[in-house]
Amino acid sequence: MKVASLVVHDVRFPTSRELDGSDAMNPDPDYSAAYVVLRTDGGAEGHGFCFTIGRGNEVCVAAIRAFAPLVEGRELDLADLGEFSRRLLHDSQLRWLGPEKGAVHMAAAAIINAAFDLAGKDAGLPVWRLLGEMPPEQIVDLADWRYLTDALTPARALEILKEAVPGREKRTAELLETGYPAYTTTPGWLGYTDDKLVRLAREAVAEGFTQIKLKVGADLDEDVRRLRLAREAVGPDIRIAVDANQRWDVAPAIEWMAALKPYDPYWIEEPTSPDDVLGHAAIRRGVAPVKVATGEHIANRVMVKQMLQAGAIDVLQLDACRVAGVTENVAILLLAAAFGVPVCPHAGGVGLCEAVQHLSMFDLVAVSASAADRVIEYVDHLHEHFVDPVRVTGGRYAAPTAPGMSTQMKAASLAAYAHPHGEVWRK
Amino acid sequence: MKVASLVVHDVRFPTSRELDGSDAMNPDPDYSAAYVVLRTDGGAEGHGFCFTIGRGNEVCVAAIRAFAPLVEGRELDLADLGEFSRRLLHDSQLRWLGPEKGAVHMAAAAIINAAFDLAGKDAGLPVWRLLGEMPPEQIVDLADWRYLTDALTPARALEILKEAVPGREKRTAELLETGYPAYTTTPGWLGYTDDKLVRLAREAVAEGFTQIKLKVGADLDEDVRRLRLAREAVGPDIRIAVDANQRWDVAPAIEWMAALKPYDPYWIEEPTSPDDVLGHAAIRRGVAPVKVATGEHIANRVMVKQMLQAGAIDVLQLDACRVAGVTENVAILLLAAAFGVPVCPHAGGVGLCEAVQHLSMFDLVAVSASAADRVIEYVDHLHEHFVDPVRVTGGRYAAPTAPGMSTQMKAASLAAYAHPHGEVWRK
Repeated sequence: MKVASLVVHDVRFPTSRELDGSDAMNPDPDYSAAYVVLRTDGGAEGHGFCFTIGRGNEVCVAAIRAFAPLVEGRELDLADLGEFSRRLLHDSQLRWLGPEKGAVHMAAAAIINAAFDLAGKDAGLPVWRLLGEMPPEQIVDLADWRYLTDALTPARALEILKEAVPGREKRTAELLETGYPAYTTTPGWLGYTDDKLVRLAREAVAEGFTQIKLKVGADLDEDVRRLRLAREAVGPDIRIAVDANQRWDVAPAIEWMAALKPYDPYWIEEPTSPDDVLGHAAIRRGVAPVKVATGEHIANRVMVKQMLQAGAIDVLQLDACRVAGVTENVAILLLAAAFGVPVCPHAGGVGLCEAVQHLSMFDLVAVSASAADRVIEYVDHLHEHFVDPVRVTGGRYAAPTAPGMSTQMKAASLAAYAHPHGEVWRK
Repeated sequence: MKVASLVVHDVRFPTSRELDGSDAMNPDPDYSAAYVVLRTDGGAEGHGFCFTIGRGNEVCVAAIRAFAPLVEGRELDLADLGEFSRRLLHDSQLRWLGPEKGAVHMAAAAIINAAFDLAGKDAGLPVWRLLGEMPPEQIVDLADWRYLTDALTPARALEILKEAVPGREKRTAELLETGYPAYTTTPGWLGYTDDKLVRLAREAVAEGFTQIKLKVGADLDEDVRRLRLAREAVGPDIRIAVDANQRWDVAPAIEWMAALKPYDPYWIEEPTSPDDVLGHAAIRRGVAPVKVATGEHIANRVMVKQMLQAGAIDVLQLDACRVAGVTENVAILLLAAAFGVPVCPHAGGVGLCEAVQHLSMFDLVAVSASAADRVIEYVDHLHEHFVDPVRVTGGRYAAPTAPGMSTQMKAASLAAYAHPHGEVWRK
């Protein structure tokens, strides 16, 4: 098949009006998507997007359009999306704007995920099953191995995948039966009152969640009070993660976490710059046994590789749309499996839960073959705009069964939230 | 003063037609600039740009426009450009597209450098002197210290700057008298024939250069032959750097350099991904005593910090326009001085020589206070488009004396090379 058109939408939700999503670094996000529709000459469609928090979404839109000459009118082999991915990422002129980071890389993510949505629909399978049924050799070919071989070779990756083959069917059946564990960030936004925090934390436990997350990093006394309240609300057996959204340098991170330690935080997320491998390693040494987690802003597989090589993190929070989509995340899942580090994806925003569940479920079926200490983030926002929204009940993601990557937004939402001329923004 | 307007130009030079600038990763660059004119309410102008190699230049243009609401109509205090810089870089929504990397960061560089060009013109000083005459406290305030304090504190930076104060006038006078050492990449592009390589290498030595550079990484046998020819052409006393433009993984880098060792390469530049701190450290251990150099694609000061902390490089090749312009480069120069690593800036492209000479000269006057083992890259391309072009004679950059940052292009060039409607592109 050929790609007939690559259409881009600038879609923004005015979430800053309610302080949903507020944290120490991002006080007023308007959750947004640079959204792609890949349409084939046969009329089939794949939908994908990258996520931003408002201003600058148009830069990702421009970056997606910059890839159009590499996509429109060109052959698309759904059985070799590794080649398709590398065609985009190896374009020397566009690569200069990264390399493999920032707006061009997020744009590539949107397009590559749209291609996987298309492939899933074409095969009549949700993407987690499409990937989970692939021969190990085909999975290895999806990844770009450049810059990885000092830590993981394709041959070793193939071994990891082959070891997981025998249990694939059993784990698929279990996933369809019981779903995948989730945790919730809904109680913990900085903009919420203490009462709302306590109420939402209790509700989360009642709903079946065994882990919640609180934003921290703006004010130490407030964080101590909020974490104490949350701990009192949920009791000693629920894991409470805290998330600083890159607010600290190394020494303040360690000091701040020492003050929170009496309330038994499970992990500290994004304590510092996502680029700071050595800083995370130092923080990890300083805050143990509290775990260190990061990933939503890690730029690419080369940075993930080093986080693992340096022993800098306990938990890898990959993002579906910041690195180059499914193909780079296949490499990242293989790296994490090779180093024995659990993947607990970043989600929330708009559509990130929908997209990333496919990666965790693929990981369980065909890569790490484990859900131990693994949870997918869940935030109860904006799912109503999707054709195949996530279903989270009893603290677990139900395995999606519809073909594709669950990344298709409703046409009415695309129209109403179009920036700046949709009805929501004209008001 | 206030900023009345921020005007952006998409300027591209069809350099791919002559294979100037061809290397193992970038076979056909069209040197381009996303170019900014900051105009004040008093009519004064500052000019700056970021550099790309063609396709995607429009993404940087879009990113510059995304910053306009933070600039246009706002106060601009030329005595506190640290605050101006942080205003751009700390915008939470735009920061999401990096953070501090890729297209939005390059866009910030263009605007911040334009502000320094304006400040130099306002003071009647070239930017290297404007910076070199600032009190140490004011220089420290230019930098954004977030994420740096585990390696370098503002207090220690202040000490470094104060130690350099006594010799400032003497070094300024020497710079004005004798200029700053350069090396040339002109002979070494991959697209050139052997005869052209040998001829240009001999000419470089005759002109007074003591270091040249060759591109490598596409074919080992060819690289051995080309390096041997170059070594025979220049003799044993001229330094020959080689540059792989990120072509290798760790093991191939070490193997390739072992094959080139008989011809005494001085440094290996960009052996692998610019994100790979640990990879560079491993390569450095593997190729010693050949030096390891990188920097033109290092995303920001956090990555520079780690390259230095890990002992990953012998030579830091900062770029004037990839990190956030003068202010972030002040932090980078201070880091390099603190770790005792010489800075040999990346230049070439279009306008990079013009911009970056100011940083090296400031470094000599007021930061490292040394030019030992330091050279600025020089490529003899496209200088004719600048109002105040670099002057390189006898293998040295003459110190610029015109006010500003030498970053202003001629109006006729801006018009003729405008993409896609300038006369050069309409043909």
